[in-house]
Amino acid sequence: MEFSLFSVLDLLGALAFAISGASLAIEKKFDLFGVFVLAFVTSIGGGTVRDILIGQTPVDWMSNGLLISTIAAGALLTLLFNPYVQKLRFIVYLFDAIGLGLFTMAGIQKGLSLDMNIFICISLGTISATFGGLLRDIITGEKPMLLTRKEIYAIASAIGGGSFFAFRYFELPMEINVPMTILIVFLVRHITYKMGIRLPGVDENGKWVRNNVDPKS
Amino acid sequence: MEFSLFSVLDLLGALAFAISGASLAIEKKFDLFGVFVLAFVTSIGGGTVRDILIGQTPVDWMSNGLLISTIAAGALLTLLFNPYVQKLRFIVYLFDAIGLGLFTMAGIQKGLSLDMNIFICISLGTISATFGGLLRDIITGEKPMLLTRKEIYAIASAIGGGSFFAFRYFELPMEINVPMTILIVFLVRHITYKMGIRLPGVDENGKWVRNNVDPKS
Amino acid sequence: MEFSLFSVLDLLGALAFAISGASLAIEKKFDLFGVFVLAFVTSIGGGTVRDILIGQTPVDWMSNGLLISTIAAGALLTLLFNPYVQKLRFIVYLFDAIGLGLFTMAGIQKGLSLDMNIFICISLGTISATFGGLLRDIITGEKPMLLTRKEIYAIASAIGGGSFFAFRYFELPMEINVPMTILIVFLVRHITYKMGIRLPGVDENGKWVRNNVDPKS
Repeated sequence: MEFSLFSVLDLLGALAFAISGASLAIEKKFDLFGVFVLAFVTSIGGGTVRDILIGQTPVDWMSNGLLISTIAAGALLTLLFNPYVQKLRFIVYLFDAIGLGLFTMAGIQKGLSLDMNIFICISLGTISATFGGLLRDIITGEKPMLLTRKEIYAIASAIGGGSFFAFRYFELPMEINVPMTILIVFLVRHITYKMGIRLPGVDENGKWVRNNVDPKS
Repeated sequence: MEFSLFSVLDLLGALAFAISGASLAIEKKFDLFGVFVLAFVTSIGGGTVRDILIGQTPVDWMSNGLLISTIAAGALLTLLFNPYVQKLRFIVYLFDAIGLGLFTMAGIQKGLSLDMNIFICISLGTISATFGGLLRDIITGEKPMLLTRKEIYAIASAIGGGSFFAFRYFELPMEINVPMTILIVFLVRHITYKMGIRLPGVDENGKWVRNNVDPKS
Repeated sequence: MEFSLFSVLDLLGALAFAISGASLAIEKKFDLFGVFVLAFVTSIGGGTVRDILIGQTPVDWMSNGLLISTIAAGALLTLLFNPYVQKLRFIVYLFDAIGLGLFTMAGIQKGLSLDMNIFICISLGTISATFGGLLRDIITGEKPMLLTRKEIYAIASAIGGGSFFAFRYFELPMEINVPMTILIVFLVRHITYKMGIRLPGVDENGKWVRNNVDPKS
C-alpha cells in the first residue's frame, strides 16, 4: 500500500468524522457500542450512500482495514480522552473541513469514472462528504445540521465541485485541479464559518431570512 | 425523447412531490440548500429505495436530466412564491394524487419486468409512490404521515396495485389496465380524502379505533 | 422446501421481530397499514441493509413467500390479540433472543460466502440481527434502544460472532460451531438481561458510567 499525502489526509478526514460522531454519541448518552456505531456511520455513511446509489457494492470500506482501524481509533480516543478532545475542538474542526474537501473530490472522481454528467458528479461529491453527518443526525434525533440554517457546509462542497468542472473545462491539469478543489472546499467552509456567513432561507410568508451571525474571533 | 401524455403526467407528479418537500422544508426553517435536498428526497426517494432493493443501480434519476430540472424548478418555485403556492394547495394536492397513481404503476412495471410475484410487485408500486414522503418525514423529524392515522394514502396505492392484477388476470389489455390503475389510485385517494375516511387502528387494549373525520367540502 | 429445525427457528425469529415492530406501532398509534409496515421493517430491515451493503440484490425476502406470510401473520396476530400478546411478552422476548442468534449466524455465513474478513463478517452478523430494530426506532422517532444504555443486545451478537471465529480457528466442525454460536448469542443476551447488566458509557467529563440495574426476577 502506498502512503501518499492524499491517503494520509483521507484517513485524517475519516478520523475527524469519527471523532465528531463519537462526541455526539457521548453527549447523547449512548453506550460503548453506540459510540462506535455512530463513529462509523458518520465517517463512512456518505461514501456508503454514494456507492449504493451507483451500485458499487460491496461498498468500499469492507475491504479497507486501515480505514476501519482509523475510525475505531477515533472512537476509542474520544471515549478515553473526551474532555481533552473537546478542548482540541478546533483541530477536529480543521480535520473535518479537510475531510469535507477530500470526500467531495473522491465522490466526484467516482462519478467521472462512471461517465456521469456534471450535475450528478457534483451531487455524488456532496453526498460523499455530507450524508454521514446527515445519518448521524437522523439516528440521534437531531435536527439535521446539514439542512438547517446553522452553518455553510454542503454548499462549500458543491462550490468546490462546481469550480472543479469550471477548471476542467479550461483544461487545467488534474494534478493542479484536484488539490485546488480540496483547498476551495476547505476555504469556503473555513471563511464562512469564521465570518459567521450562513445560507439564507425563506419564512412562511415568502420573506427572505438572513441567518448570518457575529464573526468568530 | 418522446413527450407522451404519461411522461408529462409523470413530471407533474414529480413536481407535486418536490413542492410538498420544499414546503415542509420552509415550514421547518431549513436553509436554501435544505429546501432543494428535501424536494429531491421527497420526489425521487421512493423510486430510489425501490431501485436499490431490486439492484437496479445506478438509480434511474441519475440519467434523467429532465426529471432533475423539474424537481429543481419545483423547489425554486416554492422558494420564490411560497405564500401563493400555499393558496394553490389544492392544485398541489391534485398533482400529488396523480403522482401517487403514476409512481405506483411505474413500480409495478419494474417488478413485472423482473418477474417478481404479485405481492412484491404491489409492494414495489407502493414503495415507489410513498417512501419519498416517508424519508421526508424521517429527515424532518415528523411523525410519518404515511404510517399514522392521518389520511388514506399508501392504501390507495396498494388497492390500485391489487386491481391491476385482478384486471390482468381477466386479460384486460395493458393499454386500458394501466390508465385505469392510475385512475383507481387517484379516485381512492381523492374520495377518502374528501369524505374524511381513514384507516382504523387498534388501541393498547385491543379496541378498534375509527379515525374518520368530518368530510371536507 | 426443506423444513429443517433451523428454518423453523428462523421463521420464529422473524415472527418475534414482527410482533415487536407491530406492538410498537400500536403503542405509537399507527394505523393498520403502519402496523404492517413496521412489522416488516423490523423483521427484514437488518437483512435488507446487509444485502444492500454487499450488493446481493434483489434482496432475499423478495423471493421468500413463507417469510413474508410469517411476518404478515405476526402483524395480524398482534393487531387482533394485542392485550394477550403483551401478557405473553416473555415468550416474544425469548423468540426475539433466539432470532438475534439466528440472524447473527445468517449474516456471518453471507460474509463468509463472499470471502469477507473476520471483522466484516461479524459486522454483517450484527447488522443482520440488529438494524431492523434500529430502523424501527428511527421511523417511530424513538431514541434507538440499540445504541443507548438500555440493554445488552448488539454486543451479544458481536460476542457470538467473535466466538464463532475463535472456534473456527480451532477447527471445530461447523455442525457444532453454528448451533453453539446461536446459543452463545442467546445466553449472553438472556443472562445480561436477567442480571440487569448493561454496557457502560462515558459522560461528558470523561467519567465512566455504569448503567447496570437491579436483576429481574
